[in-house]
Amino acid sequence: MDAYIGPIAAILTTASFIPQVIQVLKTKNTEGISLGMYAMFVTGVFLWLIHGILIQDVPVIAANAVTFVLASIVLIFKIKSK
Amino acid sequence: MDAYIGPIAAILTTASFIPQVIQVLKTKNTEGISLGMYAMFVTGVFLWLIHGILIQDVPVIAANAVTFVLASIVLIFKIKSK
Repeated sequence: MDAYIGPIAAILTTASFIPQVIQVLKTKNTEGISLGMYAMFVTGVFLWLIHGILIQDVPVIAANAVTFVLASIVLIFKIKSK
Repeated sequence: MDAYIGPIAAILTTASFIPQVIQVLKTKNTEGISLGMYAMFVTGVFLWLIHGILIQDVPVIAANAVTFVLASIVLIFKIKSK
């Protein structure tokens, strides 16, 4: 059963940033979004990516590469809105 | 070196939700925040938590338990603001 739970969890937490990116691109509204959150989160995801490369784990690399790109888009829009 | 990168990554991605929760509690403004993102993210983190319990990995359990609580607060405020 856990063969399914891990991958579904990874897909959900990674893909969850897609609706946020779409909303930010459409509305350009980042008012309620915390700059501190995205600054820390993007840095953390980048370190997860390095960690994945060091331990040569493809799922960790793939999930964090995608999340890094998506969360960076939100961060850039948040910085631009300041 | 990777002995530091993994834990720092985990602390950053988990703690990143603290400034978002503080901002939402203070301002009650969730306008730019995507409901779809938090619905998917909270579900995904809950599945990560189950995954952690099944593989009996304390760091995975701890990080996802904290993130689940923090992201759930944001989700509840977002739902209430609708």
